[in-house]
Amino acid sequence: MNDVSSSPPTSPDRPFASVAILGLGAMGGSLARALSFLESAPTVVGWSPLQEERAAAVDAGAVASAPPEWQDAVAGAELVVVAVPLKASCELVAGLAGATSPEVTLTDVASLKVPLARAVAEADAEDRWVGSHPMSGTEKSGFAASRGDLYQGARVWTVAHPAASPRVTGLHELWSSLGARPASIGAEEHDRLMAMASHLPQLVANALAGVLARHDVGPDGLGPGGADMTRLAASSPELWRDIFEHASPELAVGLRTLADTSRWIADLLEDGDLEGIERLMRDTREWRRGT
Amino acid sequence: MNDVSSSPPTSPDRPFASVAILGLGAMGGSLARALSFLESAPTVVGWSPLQEERAAAVDAGAVASAPPEWQDAVAGAELVVVAVPLKASCELVAGLAGATSPEVTLTDVASLKVPLARAVAEADAEDRWVGSHPMSGTEKSGFAASRGDLYQGARVWTVAHPAASPRVTGLHELWSSLGARPASIGAEEHDRLMAMASHLPQLVANALAGVLARHDVGPDGLGPGGADMTRLAASSPELWRDIFEHASPELAVGLRTLADTSRWIADLLEDGDLEGIERLMRDTREWRRGT
Repeated sequence: MNDVSSSPPTSPDRPFASVAILGLGAMGGSLARALSFLESAPTVVGWSPLQEERAAAVDAGAVASAPPEWQDAVAGAELVVVAVPLKASCELVAGLAGATSPEVTLTDVASLKVPLARAVAEADAEDRWVGSHPMSGTEKSGFAASRGDLYQGARVWTVAHPAASPRVTGLHELWSSLGARPASIGAEEHDRLMAMASHLPQLVANALAGVLARHDVGPDGLGPGGADMTRLAASSPELWRDIFEHASPELAVGLRTLADTSRWIADLLEDGDLEGIERLMRDTREWRRGT
Repeated sequence: MNDVSSSPPTSPDRPFASVAILGLGAMGGSLARALSFLESAPTVVGWSPLQEERAAAVDAGAVASAPPEWQDAVAGAELVVVAVPLKASCELVAGLAGATSPEVTLTDVASLKVPLARAVAEADAEDRWVGSHPMSGTEKSGFAASRGDLYQGARVWTVAHPAASPRVTGLHELWSSLGARPASIGAEEHDRLMAMASHLPQLVANALAGVLARHDVGPDGLGPGGADMTRLAASSPELWRDIFEHASPELAVGLRTLADTSRWIADLLEDGDLEGIERLMRDTREWRRGT
């Protein structure tokens, strides 16, 4: 017999035999679908506050069942994934800490990790929570927007208190099994990075869409470039409101730098400084190509 | 026998039996490929100043031949398509007016139409030119970036002097046969529209990339939203320099409005005005959804 004292309880390709997913929108629904495609798929029980989302997830075969109360969905789960908007995630993770046994690992997929880490600390559950932030998503919402391949190739940042470090490997294995690329980061560093890498592009899309709307250019008047640059303008205001409430101060800094850069480009154009514009484009092309 | 006096010389699904494409980059190469896929494909002869592009187009079967001199490529063509950067397009269209017979229709695929219309007027060829601007493209360059489906579903703006109006139908039929959506517009109106719909999104991508680079965020640190928002940052500086030289003054206006909008959003964030941000996002979502 093998010595199993330091081994995970299940096989490496299935770190958790049973998973509960609370929230069956684009993120949670996609996770359920992706797990259901695994060769040795865990048992997945889902929950959503919306009856139609629960029914849709069961009908799609993404979850084995979806009881109307989350307390019933988490019964027997080795891993509970919270996949609801940010504020609701903080509340739900805190609730889960009291409602589940200490062996159960808790995670979430929220876009910011400091508010989650704080809620987990207040609930005295730091040894049980490994936060996840998959950098993939869609401007669409709801289970109808879920896709089995949403996490394929995506960076997934994980955040954990040192007390939860024994649980990190299992979480990374779970994300890796779905084709994602997990990596650990600190909560504060993560949120600072996201202000630039995620929240700033979102708001720039909204700003650009606002300018185009004011100049009577509709989305049907755009080419593929303009369409890409405004795709995020369709993102959910409700979801993002929570995020912006807790966003890093760096986000406003980024927006002001973008404003300065835009005015500087306008100056270059009006001065006929084509060398300046060409230099900017050369620099950003190099950046984009990663050279 | 039919009365052919008012009919196009060839069948409606093939308005031109022979086409010369001058320039075999992403735009010209894609046009050659698309034409070669047609059931009753015209004979297509290509030309590029670069020997390797000429060879690549012939090897790919996109053109029947590609002589080293454009004068040889246009011999016998009913339609000549100029698909080189803007400034070179102006020169080439003027050269073509003298080098081809009056029956030959001339077009181009440049992103601005006022400079072309001016060059055509100076060459006294207004009755022969129907300018085209397919609103599709790629941030990549060269024949290697060409695709047979590049024009599928794309809006193609066409610009013509009244003296060339008998030739417009043939051009529209050509673009329609490739799955594109041709529509006529005036040169000035077109260029004003493009300042907002095309040039502004391009420069916003460059501005955003510049801000991210300054904050040490690399393209590999972005999710799909950030990746879309910076894809255009890889666009060709050489190609765009020409365009910005002739861009409408509206472009600088758009950049300044974007700067004001970005600073306004930063203010909302710093004031904790989440209602204001949610309202902006609701408005741009409605715009994006076309409602």
